[in-house]
Amino acid sequence: METLYDLIIIGGGPAGITAAIYGARKALKVLLLTKDFIGQMGRTDSIENYPGFANIGGLDLSRKFKQHLDKFEVEIRQGSEVKAISKVKAGFVLETTKREKLEAKTVIVASGRNPRSLKVPGEKEFEGKGVSFCGTCDAPLFKGKTVAVIGGGNTALETVLDLLPYAAKVYILEIGSKLVADEINQEKARASGKTEAILKAQVLEIRGKTMVESLVFRDLASKKTKELPAQGVFIEIGSLPATNFLKDLVDFNEKGEIIIDPLTGETKTPGLFAAGDVTSVKFKQIVIAAGEGAKAALSAYNYLQNQ
Amino acid sequence: METLYDLIIIGGGPAGITAAIYGARKALKVLLLTKDFIGQMGRTDSIENYPGFANIGGLDLSRKFKQHLDKFEVEIRQGSEVKAISKVKAGFVLETTKREKLEAKTVIVASGRNPRSLKVPGEKEFEGKGVSFCGTCDAPLFKGKTVAVIGGGNTALETVLDLLPYAAKVYILEIGSKLVADEINQEKARASGKTEAILKAQVLEIRGKTMVESLVFRDLASKKTKELPAQGVFIEIGSLPATNFLKDLVDFNEKGEIIIDPLTGETKTPGLFAAGDVTSVKFKQIVIAAGEGAKAALSAYNYLQNQ
Repeated sequence: METLYDLIIIGGGPAGITAAIYGARKALKVLLLTKDFIGQMGRTDSIENYPGFANIGGLDLSRKFKQHLDKFEVEIRQGSEVKAISKVKAGFVLETTKREKLEAKTVIVASGRNPRSLKVPGEKEFEGKGVSFCGTCDAPLFKGKTVAVIGGGNTALETVLDLLPYAAKVYILEIGSKLVADEINQEKARASGKTEAILKAQVLEIRGKTMVESLVFRDLASKKTKELPAQGVFIEIGSLPATNFLKDLVDFNEKGEIIIDPLTGETKTPGLFAAGDVTSVKFKQIVIAAGEGAKAALSAYNYLQNQ
Repeated sequence: METLYDLIIIGGGPAGITAAIYGARKALKVLLLTKDFIGQMGRTDSIENYPGFANIGGLDLSRKFKQHLDKFEVEIRQGSEVKAISKVKAGFVLETTKREKLEAKTVIVASGRNPRSLKVPGEKEFEGKGVSFCGTCDAPLFKGKTVAVIGGGNTALETVLDLLPYAAKVYILEIGSKLVADEINQEKARASGKTEAILKAQVLEIRGKTMVESLVFRDLASKKTKELPAQGVFIEIGSLPATNFLKDLVDFNEKGEIIIDPLTGETKTPGLFAAGDVTSVKFKQIVIAAGEGAKAALSAYNYLQNQ
């Protein structure tokens, strides 16, 4: 371990990038660790609520954030993920999946959220071979095909709308007894004449040879197991905060989110901060995550000044 | 009072505009009241820490925010200020300086901050005639002139730096016994050879005929009253939250800022929210104010859903 960083930031979304910009402007020695610079924002079709950009693609906005970051002296390590963090005398040691060991006086966790998975046979095997977690990214691949969207919330129905210009038929499988998405999107889906909602449907398996061919589900009403032909399966059953590496350095709320002081981004461990969708912040929005990232970096700076 | 708005937003800065965008996207009937769309942001020379724009003028960014707002159905009343708010059965009644009476179910206060004034004779009379509260705006007017900057903090020294390309001589008058601005800016000022700091100087009066001609101050060390020739006086002694109209509907902290729940923007009065630099939010930054504006609007929406 050659370098002791002032600040390591985990995550390359709006919160992480904003924290890095603010940290660098305070002349801190900053390292930003991220899997990629796409994340939830890059998987969004069109963004109309980040002030200053009336309408911009998610991937475009994530590129603008990255270009802004590149103006500053911030070291970036892309492609590895943090496996564990531990407290040491000088601050924190981070171990990555590439077996790197990195040391910093302060850490900001801005690792965002990962899509929830079904945890059924076939899901992992067919990811990228018919199974997708991103309607915006993959809808154009299913031209003329039959697809199933799993989930009945807003994200699921937005995925249905992403698919309508391409797919021949879209099944919506919801485990509960009704779709909970905003009525306006349900209405648009129905009006297409291409969708069919199947309620009380519990997905059991995704089947195929090299690519997805069908979906097996249990009809909870009739208690029968049914098979549905489908070349695509979009899984849209929510997301989970990405916190596997954290353990007992922070407290979690009932949703598994990191509990922070919303004025400062402080966690229960001095020197360890968190920001954005991984935290207990009430609303999950790009501009809010960016603001929270700025708060965490300014708090990390104040913390370092008082050491 | 013909119209009952769902939401009236007071303020046209980053917090107010973001709140209006979010409110309009939730299909609320929104009115935004503001003196102007310039504010603190518009008075800033260059902004490098609003993510997505690596470098942009303050006035340019405020125009981009305004253009974004103009995409939405938000009623805007410009030029009047709120004089008083009172609680009524349907929500709130606002009285403006133009004697309008406006009614809304919810209100977001995002009125920002106003520059602190010296409260000495001549200050008000000569505003715009040599007295300025904005270095970025007015520095070019003082080419070859002698000017005084009142204050010794970061904003004061930034004003000094704004003036250096134009003014022949810049006095810095500070009431305390030292300048507290970051050393890097003090050093730049000294290096110009054009500045002179006068410490323990209490400004008593600004004098002139039609335009500013001199400044009278008390030297607190020698206890003598002195007069300094100057054609410009820049007053940079901090800012105060703009809350005159609020009275007992909210609680204030020791800085006069509105105390909010930082997760939601709620004040102590149900239906009345606040966001941005007028509140107890710890850090005063554009991206943070914008995020807080989004939170307040989403909270106002939730509040209306539960009525």
